[in-house]
Amino acid sequence: MRAVRDPVPLLQALIRCRSVTPADDGAMAVLETALAALGFTCARLRFGEVENLFARRGTGSPHLCFAGHTDVVPAGDAAQWLADPFSGEIRDGLVMGRGATDMKGGIAAWIAAIASLPPDLPGTLSLLITGDEEGPALDGTVKVLDWMAAHGHTPDMCVVGEPTGKAVLGDTIKIGRRGSLNAMIVVHGVQGHSAYPQRADNPVHRLIRVLGRLTAAPLDAGSQWFEPSTLQVTSIDVGNAATNVIPASAMARLNIRFNDLHSSASLAARIRDALEQEGARHELEVNCSGESFLTQPGSFVEVLARATREATGVEPTLDTGGGTSDARFITHFCPVAELGAVGTTMHKVNEATPVEELHRLRDLYARVIHSLQHMESVS
Amino acid sequence: MRAVRDPVPLLQALIRCRSVTPADDGAMAVLETALAALGFTCARLRFGEVENLFARRGTGSPHLCFAGHTDVVPAGDAAQWLADPFSGEIRDGLVMGRGATDMKGGIAAWIAAIASLPPDLPGTLSLLITGDEEGPALDGTVKVLDWMAAHGHTPDMCVVGEPTGKAVLGDTIKIGRRGSLNAMIVVHGVQGHSAYPQRADNPVHRLIRVLGRLTAAPLDAGSQWFEPSTLQVTSIDVGNAATNVIPASAMARLNIRFNDLHSSASLAARIRDALEQEGARHELEVNCSGESFLTQPGSFVEVLARATREATGVEPTLDTGGGTSDARFITHFCPVAELGAVGTTMHKVNEATPVEELHRLRDLYARVIHSLQHMESVS
Ligand SMILES: [Zn+2]
Ligand SMILES: [Zn+2]
Repeated sequence: MRAVRDPVPLLQALIRCRSVTPADDGAMAVLETALAALGFTCARLRFGEVENLFARRGTGSPHLCFAGHTDVVPAGDAAQWLADPFSGEIRDGLVMGRGATDMKGGIAAWIAAIASLPPDLPGTLSLLITGDEEGPALDGTVKVLDWMAAHGHTPDMCVVGEPTGKAVLGDTIKIGRRGSLNAMIVVHGVQGHSAYPQRADNPVHRLIRVLGRLTAAPLDAGSQWFEPSTLQVTSIDVGNAATNVIPASAMARLNIRFNDLHSSASLAARIRDALEQEGARHELEVNCSGESFLTQPGSFVEVLARATREATGVEPTLDTGGGTSDARFITHFCPVAELGAVGTTMHKVNEATPVEELHRLRDLYARVIHSLQHMESVS
Repeated sequence: MRAVRDPVPLLQALIRCRSVTPADDGAMAVLETALAALGFTCARLRFGEVENLFARRGTGSPHLCFAGHTDVVPAGDAAQWLADPFSGEIRDGLVMGRGATDMKGGIAAWIAAIASLPPDLPGTLSLLITGDEEGPALDGTVKVLDWMAAHGHTPDMCVVGEPTGKAVLGDTIKIGRRGSLNAMIVVHGVQGHSAYPQRADNPVHRLIRVLGRLTAAPLDAGSQWFEPSTLQVTSIDVGNAATNVIPASAMARLNIRFNDLHSSASLAARIRDALEQEGARHELEVNCSGESFLTQPGSFVEVLARATREATGVEPTLDTGGGTSDARFITHFCPVAELGAVGTTMHKVNEATPVEELHRLRDLYARVIHSLQHMESVS
């Protein structure tokens, strides 16, 4: 049992599993073995072609869950790697390989942290591990959370082990994420000859006015914890090669990254309003890949930040930037924040985490677990 | 010589020539024979693959030229025609066939009008006939006009025999045409991720603002003889399928139909100005297929209008609407106006002109020729 207190061999074992989404290649079995040895009861949950794992130890309060994923993005051009991306080789003090930072490293450090703590912690510990975070995210965390709720395993708080570090370990805790929405607008007009526009109704002109309205002013000036929301027109396509023809319709695509001042519904209404103000006969298709969310800083975030400061000597910034993560699903069940390794090499060639950073991350996580397990009430 | 006073057989002979641009198929030879019999000296002028004809009779003043074209647009779906489009068949009092109105009918009526007048008119008569009006118009009227100028044949005034009638013969004389301009705008930005627009420069947003400026207000409110100019954005194309990418460039196409308050140069400057006001790095390509022109109503237009009123009993409207014609080239040499058959079937299936309208057009042209030949001074 001594070996598991060192996160490095566990991380190497995980990297050697070629678990490019949705493949598992033995990664869950590696974790099951390690967690069972630490007294966890494990449930393997397969949804569709995705392997998931829920592990729990204890029945007391509070219930602290760690969420992570064993799946990784493809290695890219293997010839550009200094070492085989699925070897877990150590070079110059770095554990190299796909997933070293995002986020097999975080999982290994969390389990090593548990191993380094006394087994008689007051509350409950659990791990929610999915194999579908980098993919469509349909058969992963969302379904495990529903299963957990149905079986009385809903936690009181959750730490997601994504690589949040920007420059040094502990410099950033993510307490929310912006939402992301794609919209496709089609404006219909009346086709005609460009010499006689009075007999036609040019949909391009209406679309220009609609988009002019939507882009004239920023969506907001930011909020307490968020940067300003952004709206980008990513394409306009009419496809009319005939210069003497006014086309029948015109299409535009928008991408909106939005903070807690908006929702996909309020933004869809805003787009529809602009279309109606310009009297545009239209079709509007809105796809939201994630609403914005915020874990309002309370006792959970405070204790997490204090433990981080004590363990690393760094004052963590509470951040809401970047793309989406599975935290967007967990927020519906309990307070959630993200804290993990330094993410500079994630998704890149030669992804790697220093051995000494893995040890410091284990120590950071140990202090986090100890502090959160001794909280009187979670808010 | 009696037969030529009837425009119908001459029109039928012309229709039987399958002179779809740039083909001649004997059409010029038909005219040469008819005109030589009336005392004209003919010059066949071939430029590139186009047959042209210049015919002149007399040396006195004033010199009245008639301009026309023997080329026709394709017949389209021949199965939809009631008669072979190249037969010149008469059905229910209509001469049917491609070119019956646009504008073999006008040419036949003008020649029949000359045949019906005494041969001792005071001035000079000439005909400028091209086989390249419906096509690129590069080897037709433009080159014949240069040849005429070089050989001392520049006329004092010119009637173009295009089908100008809207409902009844004589209701419309065209004294000018709008210009037409196509522009292609490419705006360059800086590509980036749509989640981080502050690191990119979205060319679509700049293009929306440029086009918003150009379409915000009408170009003008019209002028004494012209309708308001129009500007139509006929296409915008970005071709960016990736919703998370801000594209590197965006393209738009404009078509402008403009009156005598603008020129292609002033409009290009207006577009460039809008681009510069929005700080848009850009490419601008402007193609003008014809500047606007106006034959300011003076004695020529007055006499033409009076002759039309006397011959038809209809008060002609002086009009500047519609597309372009070869009058846009002739205007650089002398006052020019367009007067011809009723054009409702031009370019359509079952193009046709009533036999009785051809006779009335001959009589209208005869009065026009007589009146214009007896003018004291042309202005
Ligand atoms: Zn991740
Ligand atoms: Zn014509």
